[in-house]
Amino acid sequence: MAYTLWYWAEIQGRGEFVRLPMEAAGIAYVDAARDRGSDALIADMKTHPTRRPFAPPYLDTGGQVIAQVANILQWLGAHHDIAPDDEAGRTWLNEVQLTVTDFVAEVHQVHHPVGVGAYYEDQKAEAARISTEFREERMPKFLGWFSDAVEGDWLLGDRWSYGDTSIFQLVEGLRYMFPRRMKTLEADHPRLVAVRDRVAALPGIAAYLKSDRRIAFNQDGIFRHYPELDAE
Amino acid sequence: MAYTLWYWAEIQGRGEFVRLPMEAAGIAYVDAARDRGSDALIADMKTHPTRRPFAPPYLDTGGQVIAQVANILQWLGAHHDIAPDDEAGRTWLNEVQLTVTDFVAEVHQVHHPVGVGAYYEDQKAEAARISTEFREERMPKFLGWFSDAVEGDWLLGDRWSYGDTSIFQLVEGLRYMFPRRMKTLEADHPRLVAVRDRVAALPGIAAYLKSDRRIAFNQDGIFRHYPELDAE
Repeated sequence: MAYTLWYWAEIQGRGEFVRLPMEAAGIAYVDAARDRGSDALIADMKTHPTRRPFAPPYLDTGGQVIAQVANILQWLGAHHDIAPDDEAGRTWLNEVQLTVTDFVAEVHQVHHPVGVGAYYEDQKAEAARISTEFREERMPKFLGWFSDAVEGDWLLGDRWSYGDTSIFQLVEGLRYMFPRRMKTLEADHPRLVAVRDRVAALPGIAAYLKSDRRIAFNQDGIFRHYPELDAE
Repeated sequence: MAYTLWYWAEIQGRGEFVRLPMEAAGIAYVDAARDRGSDALIADMKTHPTRRPFAPPYLDTGGQVIAQVANILQWLGAHHDIAPDDEAGRTWLNEVQLTVTDFVAEVHQVHHPVGVGAYYEDQKAEAARISTEFREERMPKFLGWFSDAVEGDWLLGDRWSYGDTSIFQLVEGLRYMFPRRMKTLEADHPRLVAVRDRVAALPGIAAYLKSDRRIAFNQDGIFRHYPELDAE
C-alpha cells in the first residue's frame, strides 16, 4: 500500500526532503495535499485526536502517522534500502540529517528574523542584517562541515542514502536563494557539488525533476530568492 | 565504562537535555569540560578527523562519538531503559524530542534574532519585537501541543522516558526566562506542570538538582532572563 504524505501543496519546503528519497528509491506514496489542496491538509491535521503532528510534513504509513523530517527519514531508512544497516551508520546519518534541520532553520531565520509568522516585507531591514552573517559565516561553516562528511562518491561511501538527497536539496535551494554567494562557495566544495550531480543523475530523481511533481522554487518556500540579500 | 559528555562548562544549554536522563537513570558519565574547562572542549572538537561533531553537546560512548541532542537521546534510549521498546513508541518519542529541538531554536532566536554569533546588547530592539510574537503566539502553541502529548502520569503513560526530562527542562527554562508569562500560561497547562513535578521528584533528579553538577541558569545559556522581554 502506498504511503500518504501530507505537506503544503504550493511549495517544496521541508516536505521536499521526504519526497526526494522516496522518488529516488521508487517508494510508492500519495502526495495528498497536491491532489486535494492545502485546505485538505489543514482539515486532516485536526483529525488526529492523539499523537498529532505539530506541523507538516507528516507521513501516514498505514500503521502510524509520523512527523518531523528527520524522524520520517529515519523510519523510511529502517524499512527501505535508503540507509545503512549498522547502528553506527544509522546514528551518524541521523546526525547529518539533524544538522540539515539546523541549517534549514537558519535559512528560514534569514527571511523571518523578527517574526516567524509575519511577512518578509515587514522585516526587510532585519533580514538584510542577518543575511550578512549568514552568507559570510554560517554558509561556509555548514557547507564546510557537510563537505568533510562526504566519505566517497556518496556521503556514506559507496551507496546513496537519504543524506545524499538532503545534500542535493540544500545545494539546489541555496543556488536558488543566493546564486551569487553559492557561485563563490561552490568552488571550495567540489565534493558537495559532486554529490549533488550524482543525486540528480539517479534515474528516479532525473524522472522526478522533469515531472510536474517537482514544484518550482518560489517565494513562499524555505529557500527564497531576495536579490537584495545576496552578494558574492 | 562511563560515557564521556562534552559540552560547554559554564551553561546548562543544550547539554542539559542529555545530562538529565542520565542523572535520572543513574547512567555513569564524565562531564569532561566541567572537569577540564571549555578550552579542553574546543581542543577535543579538533581531534576528530572523521564524523566530527558540528557542535556540542556530543557523547563519546567508547565506541562512537554522537552529536545532536535528539540523536544522543535516541541512542541512549536504545541502550538504557529510558525509552519504550516498540518502534511506534520510539518513533513518537523522537518526534516529541525533535519538537523540543524546534522550540529551543525559537527560544534562542528570541535573544539572537539578527545575529546568531552577535551580542544580545547589539540586537535588543529586534529581540523586543520577536519576543512579543514568541510570548503571545509561539509559547501557547508549543506548550499546548506538549500538554496534549501527555498520555498519563508521564508523557508516554505509566513510565518516565527522556521525553519527560525534556519537558521538565523546558518548563524550568521558561520559568527562568519569562516568569511573568509562564505564571499566566501554567494555569492552562496543569499536565505539563505535573510532569515537571514528577521528574523533579525522581530520586536521581532530586539528588542532581541539589548537587553542584546542576549549573544555575545564567545569561550565557539558551534560556536567558531579560526582564524587558517578559510580560504577562
